[in-house]
Amino acid sequence: MFRFFADLKNISSDSIILSNEDSKHIRTLRLRPNEMFIICDGNGTDYVCKLGETNDCTKAEILSKNKNLTEPSVLCRVFIAYQKGDRLDIAVQKSVELGANDITLFKSDRCIAVPNDIPKKIARLQRISLETAKLCNRGIIPKISSSPNLETAVTDAISSDLTLFFYESEDQLHIKSVLKQHFSSISIFTGPEGGFEPHEVEYVRSKNIPIVSLGPRILRSETAPVVALAAIMYQSDNM
Amino acid sequence: MFRFFADLKNISSDSIILSNEDSKHIRTLRLRPNEMFIICDGNGTDYVCKLGETNDCTKAEILSKNKNLTEPSVLCRVFIAYQKGDRLDIAVQKSVELGANDITLFKSDRCIAVPNDIPKKIARLQRISLETAKLCNRGIIPKISSSPNLETAVTDAISSDLTLFFYESEDQLHIKSVLKQHFSSISIFTGPEGGFEPHEVEYVRSKNIPIVSLGPRILRSETAPVVALAAIMYQSDNM
Repeated sequence: MFRFFADLKNISSDSIILSNEDSKHIRTLRLRPNEMFIICDGNGTDYVCKLGETNDCTKAEILSKNKNLTEPSVLCRVFIAYQKGDRLDIAVQKSVELGANDITLFKSDRCIAVPNDIPKKIARLQRISLETAKLCNRGIIPKISSSPNLETAVTDAISSDLTLFFYESEDQLHIKSVLKQHFSSISIFTGPEGGFEPHEVEYVRSKNIPIVSLGPRILRSETAPVVALAAIMYQSDNM
Repeated sequence: MFRFFADLKNISSDSIILSNEDSKHIRTLRLRPNEMFIICDGNGTDYVCKLGETNDCTKAEILSKNKNLTEPSVLCRVFIAYQKGDRLDIAVQKSVELGANDITLFKSDRCIAVPNDIPKKIARLQRISLETAKLCNRGIIPKISSSPNLETAVTDAISSDLTLFFYESEDQLHIKSVLKQHFSSISIFTGPEGGFEPHEVEYVRSKNIPIVSLGPRILRSETAPVVALAAIMYQSDNM
């Protein structure tokens, strides 16, 4: 079934006002009268809808209301160092597929591709998040934001039950051993193309955040967050 | 350290003859005298090497020989339905990063992008496999091949200890429950953009292959094999 998101303020008890973009999309799809589609409020509730009698594409009639069942029971926050555009697109898209709650980009010392216009980049990635959330039946649209540096990102992250910092030169502490403990929220950090600088790793270690390996094969920078999320979802029975 | 692969036939007890391509690459890298690099035989052995006294880039001196330690203990075979070019590139690249032993492409009913020139496509993907294997320290170069259809691919796969067929409409059998059993080899199947046809699923079921879910969030076709491999590596202590 086609799937859209609507702002809470546009949802009444029996109908939903569609955004201009979704109205246009629904018109393009040439939905037949009574054909059903889903509108999610981005807050965990799905509404099964259809167009009204007049096939007015600006408004949908609510047929039923259900809790969205695709959101993981664990709240996962993903902190990704800036990297080249297509890598960042892949990292964000796949993190949304895997169930990330929100994604924060940050600048680290070896980042070779920090965009000049960060708000524009964030807006682009937010659109990727929206489109991916629609396709993979998410109950929320993961928010994309930017943090000025690693220190600020770490301060933001440590309210989670568990924070993990993935480092390609770590070979002692494996993800499986740190995920054995119970957690209901988790923050993960992954680096840029060239990896983290040793002093960044030491800073994070000084904050009592575990430095963790994702295994003996070196993963590309855009693959690391996806693999870490897959392990988290697997371990926490959300896959 | 830079990393290359060499054919077994070019490896003697004290030196390795480099391929033309690698010689050229080493020349471009302007390696300094005595700078070390690794040459892997593609069969699980790494040779620490350096260029000879004359900095001849066609031949490397062997300094030591070590077992490559990055290959997973579980042999994973990946069967991926043909999909659009960039998706296939991503699926192959990430499967190699995750530790796939070999990757077979096959045509299924809803494939919308089977290449006209399959040998050319396979050659391209084999190059992606080689480049990825170098970057992620693999001890083998995963072989890419093509199977004419699902039936042939299934016949090829079932010599593995465990064969899993991932289907987005399955919601009962989860990957975690099927991976609890012991296995030392596994084959996995993932579908094209539009998913598998029900009759394909029934065919696979008739061969006693479990039809398995990768969770409630619908994954894109190129993401599914990567997530399945991550789960397998995590469960089998290869991450």
